[in-house]
Formats: sequence, structure tokens, C-alpha cells
Amino acid sequence: MNNFIYEIPTKIYFGENQLQGNLSKEIEKYGTKVLLVYGGGSIKKIGLYEEVINEIRSSKIEIYEFSGIEPNPRHTEINEAVQICKEKDIDVILAVGGGSVIDSCKLICAGKYYDGDVWDLIIKKAKIEKALPLITILTLSATGSEMNGTSVISNMETNEKKSVKTPLLLPKVSFLNPKVTYSVSKYQTACGSADILSHIMETYFARNSGLYMLDTVMEGLMKTVIKYAKIAYIEPENYEARANLMWASSWAINGFARMDKEPNTWICHLLEHQLSAFYDITHGLGLAIVTPRYLKYVLNEDTVDRYYQFGINVWGIDSNLPKMEVAKKSIEYLEEFLYKDLNLTDNLTDLNIDNSNFEEMANRICGNGKVEAFVDIRKVDVVKIFNACL
Amino acid sequence: MNNFIYEIPTKIYFGENQLQGNLSKEIEKYGTKVLLVYGGGSIKKIGLYEEVINEIRSSKIEIYEFSGIEPNPRHTEINEAVQICKEKDIDVILAVGGGSVIDSCKLICAGKYYDGDVWDLIIKKAKIEKALPLITILTLSATGSEMNGTSVISNMETNEKKSVKTPLLLPKVSFLNPKVTYSVSKYQTACGSADILSHIMETYFARNSGLYMLDTVMEGLMKTVIKYAKIAYIEPENYEARANLMWASSWAINGFARMDKEPNTWICHLLEHQLSAFYDITHGLGLAIVTPRYLKYVLNEDTVDRYYQFGINVWGIDSNLPKMEVAKKSIEYLEEFLYKDLNLTDNLTDLNIDNSNFEEMANRICGNGKVEAFVDIRKVDVVKIFNACL
Repeated sequence: MNNFIYEIPTKIYFGENQLQGNLSKEIEKYGTKVLLVYGGGSIKKIGLYEEVINEIRSSKIEIYEFSGIEPNPRHTEINEAVQICKEKDIDVILAVGGGSVIDSCKLICAGKYYDGDVWDLIIKKAKIEKALPLITILTLSATGSEMNGTSVISNMETNEKKSVKTPLLLPKVSFLNPKVTYSVSKYQTACGSADILSHIMETYFARNSGLYMLDTVMEGLMKTVIKYAKIAYIEPENYEARANLMWASSWAINGFARMDKEPNTWICHLLEHQLSAFYDITHGLGLAIVTPRYLKYVLNEDTVDRYYQFGINVWGIDSNLPKMEVAKKSIEYLEEFLYKDLNLTDNLTDLNIDNSNFEEMANRICGNGKVEAFVDIRKVDVVKIFNACL
Repeated sequence: MNNFIYEIPTKIYFGENQLQGNLSKEIEKYGTKVLLVYGGGSIKKIGLYEEVINEIRSSKIEIYEFSGIEPNPRHTEINEAVQICKEKDIDVILAVGGGSVIDSCKLICAGKYYDGDVWDLIIKKAKIEKALPLITILTLSATGSEMNGTSVISNMETNEKKSVKTPLLLPKVSFLNPKVTYSVSKYQTACGSADILSHIMETYFARNSGLYMLDTVMEGLMKTVIKYAKIAYIEPENYEARANLMWASSWAINGFARMDKEPNTWICHLLEHQLSAFYDITHGLGLAIVTPRYLKYVLNEDTVDRYYQFGINVWGIDSNLPKMEVAKKSIEYLEEFLYKDLNLTDNLTDLNIDNSNFEEMANRICGNGKVEAFVDIRKVDVVKIFNACL
């Protein structure tokens, strides 16, 4: 078990009707000029845009807007938003959206203090030294970006999807209202839930053992996602289900569960980021396709104990069965959850993806070396796992 | 489920050898004059005092000292420490100790800005408007004071033990080194563990239902305490056990698990605080004696579901058994844990406590009204529960 530093100062307003009276107050702590950033306009359909504008208009805050952030957000659009921040001398960024919008906003926050293409900050050509304060209003339970310091950005010119992480990008405040997610489609609810589950599993199936206490937390989070994703999928307006998914999404990836086992290489995310970068597929769907194949590929006598614990404590499989049987069952249950209960596509072929780029994708992940994930993964392994996804 | 605001900015350094290079740096963020506060001197025996002094001496920080804080700390000694803060214009308080020392330091932090007896701040005669920054080095896993804004103080003149809670009293930084707790005696390890477990149970057995996700977290924390308290009791130098107890102690009562079910009246703590106030017994021991009696007293057909969940998920009792049987077994298992595994005294008589003050103690808790805990508790109930503890 490693030493760690825990520090997550993000303030969360959780529940209904928290914007009014609180949003302006929080923005005003940081300045008077806010850039409101959102995606394709769904926040207007559900009335959230109006609610935000009305709340801010009750104060002396000046609002500027930047909209049209796409899924798998691009560095080019972020550069445009940064330009506005510089021209208008923006004080605070307000992200209203899911992970794509929030991740974009993090880079906008950093871009304000960098002269050049923000992509430089992602590929570490330049270091993030300072960033604008960020406030978020979450509309989709998935990436956990509302409570961590990571930003994942795509460069479609070079087919790259990469991330940068620093405490400077931690949101100051996030508003989490489960009702805002009532209108999230079945498909996006499924993909978001697969994403949350994957975040926990990437930490749970790790090379280093950590605190038992944190294992129990992760097992609880996984049980929560499995239980409530199914309910939210069938009853989109079930508050309890949406609330549990929403708070679980933040805790799955705010660092709490993983600090004691750094470095903790997230191999399924590395695999999926190649899929998204080359084929622009939904992140959660890519994870749902890759994860069970990966788990099958690395299951063996040396790794079986972790699967056994997963099977018993998360899926409630009989602990008296042989370990390997429990392990295999746990993967079957996972597949049933993802592909039957959540009705997600279970292969890449149906997404019109063939094996033509697998070598190149594997090369980008491993080069001639290896990734030290739960087990060592080399180029040949990556290609095999991708092929199993066809 | 209620709305809530989550905000726990305390920074935690967890693990071995974290003081060196970090402690002075953290103190210097807040000033140059520190008041080092500790208890009876056990920190000198284990070498921690020297380690702290050496680390601070490497900087330009001026150190003042105040020692001799007792268990169930008194407002009178806190007034003395406040005097030093005012005379020397102290910038930061450094607490090195367990809950008693840290709770005292919180009130010292607030006392610096109050002209009068600090007891006024406890009984809300005056409000805490401002407080010095507090840094803690934890030496005992129990009260969770290292990561929350509560201070519990005793007034032995009036036989009162009361608390005050405000985010202003949240430690800025806490250092949690499991090895520091190796020298904690079997008895104090047992009492501390009983205290941690009680903190979780007080929230778990609550009137309002909350997020399933947080139930799973609480169940995990309870399993962690039960598993590792037994190990630490037998093997005091087991790092894994001490680490799990230490991090569990912080999360049992930092507010994370309970925010969605406020108000959440901690009845066993109210009962125990009367015992400590009248008889100056160890807080964790008092809780260990009171809690099973309370759970037996309020178990009925209306409340059994919660016990059933507790029995299944925490103690691993067969879910096919009748609910009431599971519930009763869960209390038996708890008693076995507290009184056999941890070897704690299971009654008040052995502590030379008789029923002579029970009426007065009950009166102080309920007056002529009721406490809205997991179930309504009136004066007559309190007396019955205390009598069952004899």
C-alpha cells in the first residue's frame, strides 16, 4: 500500500433547486465576468439554460456564451473559446453539460493563461501553471469530471485522444441535480453507466493491492451502478436511481478510491481512447465492448483471486464455488448487465470497425514496450484484445 | 433523501514519513508562529515530539508549546491555551494527539478571536465567527476529529459534555501515519474502534433513508472496523490493520456518509456524553456499553428491516433466515465483537456506576420532550436503556 495525499476541495451542491441563490453567490466569489459554455443546446430543451440565465441575471455578473462543444471534444473549438476569454478578460468559466463540456472548460481555464494552441498543454509541450476558476452544472452522470482535475481532449487531425491532470483544473463548485438527468436517453444512460463502472473497475483490478476499506467502497459503488443503471434505463424519471448514479459517478473517479495504489494504469481506457480517436465512438460504449474482453484475456491462475472477490462481493456469486468458476461467472454477469440489461452493442463490427488500424492503435499504446496495468500488456496483447472485440 | 452540500477541503497526508519536508511547508502557508499542543507526553515516548520539533526547526517558524490536555478535555485548560495565543499572537495551531487534543485545539483556534470563557462558544452563548488555522498530527484512530469541524468539550463543574460544529473548525491539513498508532494500548485500540463503529452506526440506523450508495459505503466501513480492530488488538504493529482503522476513522464521521439524511440525531452519543460528563469514563467504552442495549430496546417490527440489512451486509448472516432472527443475531455478533474480541467491559456496574443519576441524565437529554432519533426517545426510554446497561 502506498502513501498518498488526499485533497478534493470541490464543493458540491447536491439535489433539486440548488441553483437559485447559490450559483451567482459562488460565481461572485471569483469575479464578475463569466463565460457560460455548453454543448448542442439540449440544456435549452430541458429549461436549464433559462434557469441558469435567470439566476445569473439576478446578480451583477456579466455573461458571455460559447456553445456547440461536441462529444469527444476537439482542441480546435477550445482554442476559439480561449480567444473569447482573453478578449473579454473572463474571470470564471461556467460549464453546463456532461464530461465533454466540462473537460473542454478545464482546458479553456488553462488556455486563458497560455499563449499558443491548447493542444500543447495536453501533450505536455507546455505546462499548466495557472487556470481560471471553474464552476460546473452537471447534466450527465458518467465521466466524473465534475469532481476531478482531469481533462480528456481529442485531436481529430492526428487521431489522438489524450488527457492532462492537475489540481489546478479541479472545479471549485459543482451543482449535481439528479432531475437534470431525467431527459438523458436510454442509450446515453447506458453508456454513462458503463463509463462509471469502468472507472471503478480500472482501479479495482489493479496491480497493487491497497486498503481493504477502499475495496469495500469500490464494491459498494459497483453494486450501486449495477442496481440503479438498470432502474434508470427503464424508469428515466426515478429520482433515487438518478441520484445514486450521479453521486457514484463523482466518487468513482475523484481519486478517493485509488490514491493508495498509484501508479494505476487504466488499460481499458487506453484501449478505448484509441477507438474514440480513430472512429469517434461514444466513450462509454467503447469501454463496454472492450472491458469484458480484456478481463477474459488477463484471467489466469495468478489473477483469479481478484475476480473471485469481485464475483462474491459485487455480483453475489456463491463463495463456495471454485475460484475460476466464480471468476468466469463474474465476467458473464458483467456482459449480461452491459449487453442485455443496458442493451449496448457487444462488438466493434456492428460499429463498422474492422481490424485495419489495430496494429497502429496497439503501437500507439505500447510502442515496443509494455503497459504495466493489472498485468503487463504488450502490442501483441492489445491486437488480440481488439480482435476479440470484432 | 435530502439535498446536501458537500465540502471537505481538509488535506490529508497519509502514510509513513510524510512529516519531513511537508509539515513546515504547510504551517508556513498560514504564518510563522505556531502553538504546538499535546496531551500527557506519550508523543515524547514514541519519538514523535522530537520528529515534529526537528522538522519545524528546519524552518523559520517560532514554536510555542501547551501540553497536558486530558481525555474528555476541559474548557478551563483551553482558556489557558487561548491566553498564550493572544499574548504571543499565534498564527497556527498544531495539534499532536487524538480526539481530545484535536477537539481542544479547535476551541483554542476559535478562542483566539473571542474575549471571554470558551465555554460560551460551546453552549452557543456566543457564535464562532473566526478561527485560527489548525493542522493536526493524529495519534489515535477514533474520533475522526482530524477531518471534521466538530469539537466536543467537557465542563466538569457542571457535569456537561457538549459540542460545537462549524466548517471554520475543519483542520486545514492532517497527517495520518498508521505507524504512530502502533503504541496505542489494546484497551485504547478497542475503545477507539468502538467509537469509529458507533459513528457509522449512528448514521446507518437513522430515521431518514438516504442514498443506497452511502449505505454500501457505511457497510464497507463497518466491515473494515470489525475486521481490522480484531487484528490490531492482537498485532498492534500490523500496518495494514492500523492503516485501515485510521482512514476508516476519518470517513466514519467527516460527514460524507450522512449528508443526505440530516437531521440525524446521534442518540447513543447523547447517552454516552452523559456518562462521560458524570463519571469521566472513556468515550468509546461508554458507547460500547450503551449501543447494543439501545439497539435491543428499539428493535421491533417497524424497525427490523434496517437490522436485517445490517445483519446480512455487515455480519454476513444468512439472508434466508427470518428478519427478526437476523436482527437479533446482528446484535449478538456486535456484542461478541465488543465484549469478547475487543475484551471491553460490558456493563456500567463494573465501572462503579449505579442508577442514582439516571433520572437527571435522562432529563438533560430529553427534558419533557423527545429526541427524534432512529425512533422517538423520551426520558423514560433513556432511563430504561441506562438501567439495561447496569
